[in-house]
Amino acid sequence: MDKPIKNKIEEANKIATEKILKSRPLLLDIKPAIDVLPNMKKNSIFHAGPPIEWKRMCGPMKGAIVGTMIYEGLAENWTQAVKMIEYEEIEFSPNHDHDAVGPMAGVISPSMPVLVVKNDTYGNICYGRFVEDRVQFGRFDMGAVETLKFWSETLAPGLGKAIRKSKGLDLKSIMAKALHMGDELHNRPAAGTLLFASVVMPYLIEVVDRDNLVKTAKYFSENEIFFLCMSMAACKVTMNAASEIEYSTLVTAMARNGTDFGIKVSALGNKWFVGPASVIDGVYFPGYGSDDANLDMGDSAITETAGIGGFALADSPAILSLIGGSAEDAIKYTKQMRQITMTLNDMFSLPILDFEGTGTGIDLRKVLRTGILPVIDTAIAHKEPGIGMIGAGLVRPPIDAFKKALHAYGAKYHLT
Amino acid sequence: MDKPIKNKIEEANKIATEKILKSRPLLLDIKPAIDVLPNMKKNSIFHAGPPIEWKRMCGPMKGAIVGTMIYEGLAENWTQAVKMIEYEEIEFSPNHDHDAVGPMAGVISPSMPVLVVKNDTYGNICYGRFVEDRVQFGRFDMGAVETLKFWSETLAPGLGKAIRKSKGLDLKSIMAKALHMGDELHNRPAAGTLLFASVVMPYLIEVVDRDNLVKTAKYFSENEIFFLCMSMAACKVTMNAASEIEYSTLVTAMARNGTDFGIKVSALGNKWFVGPASVIDGVYFPGYGSDDANLDMGDSAITETAGIGGFALADSPAILSLIGGSAEDAIKYTKQMRQITMTLNDMFSLPILDFEGTGTGIDLRKVLRTGILPVIDTAIAHKEPGIGMIGAGLVRPPIDAFKKALHAYGAKYHLT
Repeated sequence: MDKPIKNKIEEANKIATEKILKSRPLLLDIKPAIDVLPNMKKNSIFHAGPPIEWKRMCGPMKGAIVGTMIYEGLAENWTQAVKMIEYEEIEFSPNHDHDAVGPMAGVISPSMPVLVVKNDTYGNICYGRFVEDRVQFGRFDMGAVETLKFWSETLAPGLGKAIRKSKGLDLKSIMAKALHMGDELHNRPAAGTLLFASVVMPYLIEVVDRDNLVKTAKYFSENEIFFLCMSMAACKVTMNAASEIEYSTLVTAMARNGTDFGIKVSALGNKWFVGPASVIDGVYFPGYGSDDANLDMGDSAITETAGIGGFALADSPAILSLIGGSAEDAIKYTKQMRQITMTLNDMFSLPILDFEGTGTGIDLRKVLRTGILPVIDTAIAHKEPGIGMIGAGLVRPPIDAFKKALHAYGAKYHLT
Repeated sequence: MDKPIKNKIEEANKIATEKILKSRPLLLDIKPAIDVLPNMKKNSIFHAGPPIEWKRMCGPMKGAIVGTMIYEGLAENWTQAVKMIEYEEIEFSPNHDHDAVGPMAGVISPSMPVLVVKNDTYGNICYGRFVEDRVQFGRFDMGAVETLKFWSETLAPGLGKAIRKSKGLDLKSIMAKALHMGDELHNRPAAGTLLFASVVMPYLIEVVDRDNLVKTAKYFSENEIFFLCMSMAACKVTMNAASEIEYSTLVTAMARNGTDFGIKVSALGNKWFVGPASVIDGVYFPGYGSDDANLDMGDSAITETAGIGGFALADSPAILSLIGGSAEDAIKYTKQMRQITMTLNDMFSLPILDFEGTGTGIDLRKVLRTGILPVIDTAIAHKEPGIGMIGAGLVRPPIDAFKKALHAYGAKYHLT
């Protein structure tokens, strides 16, 4: 006789949980996307969140795509780029459907360098787009495009060499240490950046010239946010190891394209379940306000999916204090996330909670049973293309995405 | 008519407090002690804590002095060194009496590199001995002596060049950031070390060769405790600016030589007030216990004197968890220290306390009125020379030192 469905779910989720906890993300390389991403073609552009056609894309996503096309030499300006897109000369596809993640618009194009991260325990590989504060927020001016060139021409080749020389950098141990240093590893990866710099520096010194070394050291020193790309790719390679497990109700991805919010669920494979992207509860740079804000955007919610970011807010009260919350509130958010997750993380622990782990592995059933939605840290892009970052805040996803997933789950396993 | 004494004290303490808060420690250089310390002679050895003669010195202090004499080429072994000391060929003197500080035994000898830190606001200069985990804990074997040589021959010359090229590194801003990253900057200066490395690296790359650069980068990456020497020297140059203010009851120094604990008080100038060094409430490395422990030792309590270390424990629950305390206890210690201090620090703030400052500037009167003694983080040396570090913990100073200071204060101002 068949086991009761409840037992099957518990067993599946136990396996999923173990896969998350045992994952060991190693950074292996930084290479141009076309050299490593299996389905990347010369006219491919991958983007954050669930699938979306050009017409429904939000302003900053469109701006980021145009900026990236200018960087690739495909177009010289907005008009040329849009014409190509309307002639269907560009193929769009979500990062997540290619084992990749990118922050904000998250746009990855063929020449763009990506991190290559391997799960040393399970062998799967994922890819991460680097972080910058211009094109990924929708800017497409020459200054913004220069940022991409600086990455691909100056930073990535040297870092790639250093990482290859290291034979793989252990991202999980850096992340565990950073969580003991006030990072939640999404909006605040400052300690992660310093720790990464410290670990990679001896290799870097040996493989690049002095000029490149000075530029890279200054970049680390001036860009606290750098490590977010490492954190995201590490989380993606972790969650992918726990995907496609029959009966598991684990949420394996949460991602937004600035218009829609989508999730994936382990038992339901690669299928997206979407709802409308949410309004962000945020704080704005001077001169901007909530009327200027785009809806929630980016693949960076993979960090929350893996038990950090908003799930580790207790670590980084600064993030909450920006929008008027106290250190005590930050602890409450972190404790609340335990109610919708499968386990406490054994590597990601928080000093202020006496080194208890963060709630890890969102259980679709628990979200719907409790009505508690995951809390996600995020940055805010201006809703018009060409402007860029205007603030940061917290957001909860739409419950619709979770309801649709549960419905599909019920249909798949005949639970009606 | 004279103002009442109480008003004079309040006014003096207000000036003292302002001097602490406005101090801006800049790291200017690293040079051999004899080149920069005004009263250092070829046969001088400076040490931690209040003055003490050889016979009364504890085991690890004796070991550190012998190790340092071997490093200086003054002796080849214990017997030769002790003979020289007994013939009075070496002149001992406390670091604090020469505007210097050193961790644990804190021994500074003529060839030893010291940090040169200037108070950019008030112009005064102080000196700091670097940190290592061997000689300063009482070891005098060749392996331990090699650590000193590595510092003076490899690390110090390159770092000195880089720091001179920088025209001064702002230690206070590094310290403020580190306090937002889980450091209390005494037992745990891990973030400080990473931040310092990040700031100095671009200069270092320009002035040293590749071999030296790799060694220094690896040293930063493998020695979390490195920044303690910077933190201590910054605190010393800060507290010296607030010393020798008539009527001020500010405690300007707390220091231990492993036998005696001494304090200085602003209104009482350079005079020491001492009591017996305390037993440490500690956790031990495997194979060691409280029977092996030396009493409290080192100048590092200058950090608590300036409002960090034990006064910022809320930031670093890890330190307390080692000896069985919780994150909540860590917060209690930090709040308790507000009862014996003059102000909340405006630069040294703690995220978990909603960015309130640490209690800063110990008021001699408040210590005696409340009976609350300062809480001090510390490492533990084995009581016999030649063994080294065996643990870490928390300690409170002897109340006698404070009582004697109050008595002297009363006598000076005819308050009997």
